[in-house]
Amino acid sequence: MAKERPYVGIDLGGTNMQIGVVDARNTIIGESRRKTQADGGLNKVVDRLVGGVEMACEHAGIAVKDLGGVGIGAPSPIDDRRGVVMRAANLGWTDVHLADILRERLGVPVALDNDVNVALYGEWKMGAGQGAEDLMGVWVGTGVGGALILRGALYAGHFFTGGEIGHLRLFPGAPRGSESVERFCSRTAVAERLAQRIRSGEQSLLEELAAGKLDSIKSKMIARAYKEGDALTREVVDESADLLGVAIANVVTLLGLPRVVLGGGLTEAIGDPYVNRVRKAVRREVFFEATRAVEVVASTLEDNAGLLGAALLARERLG
Amino acid sequence: MAKERPYVGIDLGGTNMQIGVVDARNTIIGESRRKTQADGGLNKVVDRLVGGVEMACEHAGIAVKDLGGVGIGAPSPIDDRRGVVMRAANLGWTDVHLADILRERLGVPVALDNDVNVALYGEWKMGAGQGAEDLMGVWVGTGVGGALILRGALYAGHFFTGGEIGHLRLFPGAPRGSESVERFCSRTAVAERLAQRIRSGEQSLLEELAAGKLDSIKSKMIARAYKEGDALTREVVDESADLLGVAIANVVTLLGLPRVVLGGGLTEAIGDPYVNRVRKAVRREVFFEATRAVEVVASTLEDNAGLLGAALLARERLG
Repeated sequence: MAKERPYVGIDLGGTNMQIGVVDARNTIIGESRRKTQADGGLNKVVDRLVGGVEMACEHAGIAVKDLGGVGIGAPSPIDDRRGVVMRAANLGWTDVHLADILRERLGVPVALDNDVNVALYGEWKMGAGQGAEDLMGVWVGTGVGGALILRGALYAGHFFTGGEIGHLRLFPGAPRGSESVERFCSRTAVAERLAQRIRSGEQSLLEELAAGKLDSIKSKMIARAYKEGDALTREVVDESADLLGVAIANVVTLLGLPRVVLGGGLTEAIGDPYVNRVRKAVRREVFFEATRAVEVVASTLEDNAGLLGAALLARERLG
Repeated sequence: MAKERPYVGIDLGGTNMQIGVVDARNTIIGESRRKTQADGGLNKVVDRLVGGVEMACEHAGIAVKDLGGVGIGAPSPIDDRRGVVMRAANLGWTDVHLADILRERLGVPVALDNDVNVALYGEWKMGAGQGAEDLMGVWVGTGVGGALILRGALYAGHFFTGGEIGHLRLFPGAPRGSESVERFCSRTAVAERLAQRIRSGEQSLLEELAAGKLDSIKSKMIARAYKEGDALTREVVDESADLLGVAIANVVTLLGLPRVVLGGGLTEAIGDPYVNRVRKAVRREVFFEATRAVEVVASTLEDNAGLLGAALLARERLG
């Protein structure tokens, strides 16, 4: 049975790629993590993907040809039927037939989907989303990604933008592109606001943690400053969590969703205080008392959600 | 066959109820329209519903007992499995088992759903929504109601709030309850802003059209002033259409929806200029170029969408 074979799952990001071989019991039996090197162009990234799959298989002690297939999540609207990356801003790609390209290079079937879609699929099958027929995933890191499971299946919609909560517009009238959920709530946006305020003279522990490099404030630094009670960090992070809560509340109202899973680098780094803050905002802002029963929970697969979900989705679609 | 019998459809609003007998060819063969008289309480409204069904059947020349069933749309989140009106602010009802009550009084099966859900169902089966697998309806009148068809079926979600676009919050940080889509875009909200600005001294044709009764500016008056080029009316209506467009764009992005049907009293009264303005805003605000292909169209069943949809839904569920 093809379903019993190991599958490779790939979480392809703008900065890193994370690759794992997953066996029939959903255990990761071989792994590789590498820089994406998107600046090198499509061929370079494909070479690194192929090399990464080979390395992960070697770690697992199997040959690529013995895989049931490869699943890959990419940061873009994805036409999953044609296997096309439609527009990946972080990779600089438009209309890339990635599934075909990888199938040709690897000689095994390939399933392609959006990065947060595959992560949410992983949470749904073996993590914090188990048992929910309808579910949203919100991943907060470099950007804000989202995914939906509706009526028991991933939902991409006619334009393949299903679940893209990061691209909702919050402030009508603001200059185009400046006030989406992502532009306000991503780690990138939070770090930018923090850097700006420190530069304009406000005190913060972050100045020391970032060793003066205010252009590269990481999730871990933000988390450390937050946990140590740094007032500026608390203010900026809480404000972003409150706003994200409004956006999530709107989706919960609109779709009557019983559960939302939060993941991504910023969520993982700060953990409970962040998730609690978002949950509180969601419950405050939803329409209709009954809706306050919505569960807002943290990813349990954390950093592995993407690769596990990609492997499981590949097994489901190709096996 | 029960499906071949006539069905009654009821569009129950806070002010009016509209009742029609619909035959197997989807023609309305008998009708009644009455005031709801919600102030009289539940029993009064039920009496008027029962009387209205009897009158409509009499016009159609059939007996109530020969109906296949009755479908009813009510302005509230609806638990359609239990037939319960969960919270109808306009009627002052909470947890009313309306389907049971009407079934007992009429002696025929009753199907209950949200008012905009049934209207959208009508548009989907025989109006502007035909052929779409995923579809949103937005009804702008006293309030702003919404409904969703996803994966080929009405979608209510776990909390029965599915499609409630009127209850999305647009301005985080605004005082609770003041800045939902409904509070800004409904005919009620538009009329209030117009009245306020006229009272504070601005010129408008509406003052004459409303004969000084600024508390009761109707959709038709707004439409007339709009069409005659009244500057204040244009400004306030356009601003509301632009904001509604942002809200709709967000849902279109989130769900990748290919089509949106606009209905309700204000939409019908103003017609094309209103629909065009909303469409333009939607296309401007959606994420991702491909998404601009979304169709934003006017209801074609107009005032009859609710009763036709309720009858068709009853035939589908009970027949």
